[in-house]
Amino acid sequence: MSPSDSLPPSHPDSLPPSRPTYLGPNQYGKAENRVVRITREGATHHVKDLNVSIALSGDMDEVHYSGSNVNVLTTDAMKNTVYAFAKEYGIASAERFGMHLARHFVSSQESIRRARIRIEEYTWERITEQHSFVRKGQETRTTEISYDGETWQVISGLTGLVVMNSTDSEFWGFAKDKYTTLPETQDRILATEVNARWRFGRPGDDGADPAPDWDSRYAEVRRLLLEAFAGTYSLSLQQTLYTMGTRVIEGVPEIDEVRLSLPNKHHFLVDLAPFDLKNDNEVYFAADRPYGLIEGTVLRDGAQARIPITD
Amino acid sequence: MSPSDSLPPSHPDSLPPSRPTYLGPNQYGKAENRVVRITREGATHHVKDLNVSIALSGDMDEVHYSGSNVNVLTTDAMKNTVYAFAKEYGIASAERFGMHLARHFVSSQESIRRARIRIEEYTWERITEQHSFVRKGQETRTTEISYDGETWQVISGLTGLVVMNSTDSEFWGFAKDKYTTLPETQDRILATEVNARWRFGRPGDDGADPAPDWDSRYAEVRRLLLEAFAGTYSLSLQQTLYTMGTRVIEGVPEIDEVRLSLPNKHHFLVDLAPFDLKNDNEVYFAADRPYGLIEGTVLRDGAQARIPITD
Amino acid sequence: MSPSDSLPPSHPDSLPPSRPTYLGPNQYGKAENRVVRITREGATHHVKDLNVSIALSGDMDEVHYSGSNVNVLTTDAMKNTVYAFAKEYGIASAERFGMHLARHFVSSQESIRRARIRIEEYTWERITEQHSFVRKGQETRTTEISYDGETWQVISGLTGLVVMNSTDSEFWGFAKDKYTTLPETQDRILATEVNARWRFGRPGDDGADPAPDWDSRYAEVRRLLLEAFAGTYSLSLQQTLYTMGTRVIEGVPEIDEVRLSLPNKHHFLVDLAPFDLKNDNEVYFAADRPYGLIEGTVLRDGAQARIPITD
Amino acid sequence: MSPSDSLPPSHPDSLPPSRPTYLGPNQYGKAENRVVRITREGATHHVKDLNVSIALSGDMDEVHYSGSNVNVLTTDAMKNTVYAFAKEYGIASAERFGMHLARHFVSSQESIRRARIRIEEYTWERITEQHSFVRKGQETRTTEISYDGETWQVISGLTGLVVMNSTDSEFWGFAKDKYTTLPETQDRILATEVNARWRFGRPGDDGADPAPDWDSRYAEVRRLLLEAFAGTYSLSLQQTLYTMGTRVIEGVPEIDEVRLSLPNKHHFLVDLAPFDLKNDNEVYFAADRPYGLIEGTVLRDGAQARIPITD
Repeated sequence: MSPSDSLPPSHPDSLPPSRPTYLGPNQYGKAENRVVRITREGATHHVKDLNVSIALSGDMDEVHYSGSNVNVLTTDAMKNTVYAFAKEYGIASAERFGMHLARHFVSSQESIRRARIRIEEYTWERITEQHSFVRKGQETRTTEISYDGETWQVISGLTGLVVMNSTDSEFWGFAKDKYTTLPETQDRILATEVNARWRFGRPGDDGADPAPDWDSRYAEVRRLLLEAFAGTYSLSLQQTLYTMGTRVIEGVPEIDEVRLSLPNKHHFLVDLAPFDLKNDNEVYFAADRPYGLIEGTVLRDGAQARIPITD
Repeated sequence: MSPSDSLPPSHPDSLPPSRPTYLGPNQYGKAENRVVRITREGATHHVKDLNVSIALSGDMDEVHYSGSNVNVLTTDAMKNTVYAFAKEYGIASAERFGMHLARHFVSSQESIRRARIRIEEYTWERITEQHSFVRKGQETRTTEISYDGETWQVISGLTGLVVMNSTDSEFWGFAKDKYTTLPETQDRILATEVNARWRFGRPGDDGADPAPDWDSRYAEVRRLLLEAFAGTYSLSLQQTLYTMGTRVIEGVPEIDEVRLSLPNKHHFLVDLAPFDLKNDNEVYFAADRPYGLIEGTVLRDGAQARIPITD
Repeated sequence: MSPSDSLPPSHPDSLPPSRPTYLGPNQYGKAENRVVRITREGATHHVKDLNVSIALSGDMDEVHYSGSNVNVLTTDAMKNTVYAFAKEYGIASAERFGMHLARHFVSSQESIRRARIRIEEYTWERITEQHSFVRKGQETRTTEISYDGETWQVISGLTGLVVMNSTDSEFWGFAKDKYTTLPETQDRILATEVNARWRFGRPGDDGADPAPDWDSRYAEVRRLLLEAFAGTYSLSLQQTLYTMGTRVIEGVPEIDEVRLSLPNKHHFLVDLAPFDLKNDNEVYFAADRPYGLIEGTVLRDGAQARIPITD
Repeated sequence: MSPSDSLPPSHPDSLPPSRPTYLGPNQYGKAENRVVRITREGATHHVKDLNVSIALSGDMDEVHYSGSNVNVLTTDAMKNTVYAFAKEYGIASAERFGMHLARHFVSSQESIRRARIRIEEYTWERITEQHSFVRKGQETRTTEISYDGETWQVISGLTGLVVMNSTDSEFWGFAKDKYTTLPETQDRILATEVNARWRFGRPGDDGADPAPDWDSRYAEVRRLLLEAFAGTYSLSLQQTLYTMGTRVIEGVPEIDEVRLSLPNKHHFLVDLAPFDLKNDNEVYFAADRPYGLIEGTVLRDGAQARIPITD
């Protein structure tokens, strides 16, 4: 149907001249497949609990232009694949499981050239029985696997880890314009919700096993982030952010890049003077909105910024 | 203005005969006051983080009928009181703090005859520094204090504690009607979100200190709930519920009543036969909705059901 | 097993003397069954979109004490019933549909003595085609049906209807204590989220059809609530609440009781003086928390307060 | 401090050789400033209700590396600017207001080279009085303004517009692998939540006023999206997506690019055969998760894809 058969289908000149639009970047898949994998080791049970989202892209022009589904693997089949693979491969870690899926879709479907698998993991702790668990913690562990048939990209992370330093945070010496009213302070609460992603420089290949021990890397990064936050005498949240990212890169050789998004969860010292009380950095109002939002990427010397951001 | 002056203002006969309506139960106050209290013990800091909601009731007819605010303490003043009291009294526990507030409003405002204080508490754990914290756990601790000038009611609780038994749960022998299709099972996952409230029989009086150690009671109840859940070979979630409530009452003499609301967070065994795989209680789909919802009150012998429920 | 066979099973004296607890109020069922019913009238389609929650109670001691499910209708069967009834009866209105379900469970299950059906309804508007719809509005329509084999209780309602008067609201003349700092005002924004429930005095019986036209009653109540809110020169949100409830009762003879829960969504006039600007009731900060919360019941003369509330 | 003064501060070689990391892309600002602007035209009031998020970037190395705030405009000042500008300029439209802010920050702060303003707008409809409003609809209107001192980028949009076609949707002829079980269908419900962003090719400049009438463009795009959805006989959601994007580009000359993210909100035909009922495309289960997610960009011939996406 195209005047120029040698042009890729998405090139504007390959479209009938009456069509004023063409298809740009696109992907599709089944999002938020909730899978729980139980492994029984005698009376001791292990649980892996994931939320798996799949997005595939490739030769998808036809289905967009004409509705022809010939090249379209159903999202329902992607869902089934998640459960079948949970049985066939088990879930050693979210990263490894995502790599199984990504490799499968890219290699088994001719029309699919790239797979992006996003996974959230919910952690469980044991209670008193070996088959009994309680959901742990506020943070959600994440990973995002991208594979195009040749190159792997693994970006792991966490969201929702709320932290607070009740002192050792100052904020002064800032620029002042006609709209600036904030008083300087030598002692304030610094509270934030750590949302972090980190990219592995050489994610490795599942089969040959140069891949890192994903679970222990996660624990290490989490530890380093918390320690850096706690241990930084902060003059600015940006400084804390940079220290946290640097601590991770210095501590984990496989990581090349860290992206942090840190809302400044403001705790305002309440003015108690109207009630003849002196508030000696004791009583705070924890505000919802607005909040400062500090976002930044920290890179290993020589590495490139690749973690996707929506500026 | 009323034909019968001796009747209470809310009695229908005390209203002008042309008014076809009268005021029923009512309350008002400031909801969700977020207060963070830091206590410095040298370099060691302690944090209490509460969400305090106040509801007062009493002689409120006038403000409803005519808009006269003469008897109305502003909700803004209630908010200020929360922060002032956080300074003046500190926050030893949510229960004690709520009792300070309840007593204050009922005794200081002539028009107020009853105060209900609801509090959610967010728990923080220490990181590496003595002034550094990370928010702990999924569950939110709660308390609800009611005071009418004479009697105290203290109902503490928790919400959002997600638990799972990966085995030791059966479900069979149930009633079958024409709409019943569920197969019986001898082995299923039992997962729920524990939402619990427990009422203290004799909450005691803050001044005289027969009041329980609220923090240690909370820890004890949480432990008993988890142990009962984990240790019950369950034939029905109702059975588990009753066992959990009983365990708490047996274990904590001050508690007279436990109300549990337990959604059955269904984990469906995925049919992998179409893929020539045998799912040996390994791979589950964790469903969102619908969910079973089992709610019940367990009472100490001789006690009355007083925890408010909306049937 | 009980020393006194003639006592109801839940009576403490009917339990083995070693059991220190007994079962109080309880219910169970399947919550949040999402059902969409399409009716085709030629090319014109009609849609009803409900979220149905079922709670049943009756002779449930056994399942709690021993785990015997003999009297237990599975919640899965309740779910199936929702879909089967959507086919068999259609969904004329949420109220009628709920009454079908309630009657069914109470009459068909010997152990069930009371059914409470809660329904949320999502409204759709038409787009350009007769089979095309867009979800309308913020508010969710609700109903709650209770039936015990003899008496019906129908409490309909709405949640999430956000309204604002940008003037015609004053707040002054209020009580002042040592924690009061709020300045009086003759002109403020009054914004709230209307959460309303109204109880029908004589819900009627589905078969004999003295039942109201539920859909038109809903539309009428919604209109009256909005008009009352808009048209009230407010001296206090309590006054507005009472006027809104009264307007509904006066306007709809079948309604005996209205319960309103109105958060005061504070809009604070921003102090622009530091920037040499005069804020002439023009620029406001819309706060999240805390918020005033005004709750009250308005009753028809002679009626009783029956809408469940958790004080 | 850098060995090479001519290198940009963020270049690795300008850092002390002992530092293994450097700062990558970064931005900061005040997020979610809730501003309500009332304009009184006699008794007729107008309301604009926005949620404004500001992110600035530029020469921010120092604050990250050393914590020096010399170049840092406080996020608190950004917040103040929102309210001051709401007074000074009014809020003609979200786009125009965002452009005022973006220009201000880039031109007034030497260290700031780029501003990105994101705005959500909540729409209000009138009730019976000229100062009374009710919040309209589910969808939230959005805009995102970017300015770097020379070039403007305006990407407007909407989120949360839920739509449904109850017929005129087929899905067959798709690829089948070993995990495919989905039956083909000639008649299904197609429901989705429209999340759309569209980029203006020449956003224009606020002063010279070649800028589009933002409000009428929004209404036009919304109309075109709904019509395209309703009027497309859909063989695949991708086809519907492409048709919707094309309709907008064809209908609004200023728009060069449309990005759509459409979850397939599955409505499953319930199997009523176990109850001897025939489900004739009448009764559906509306599922939560998982859901298909179809995302794609539609481009005007000759335009580039610039709307940020996180693949």
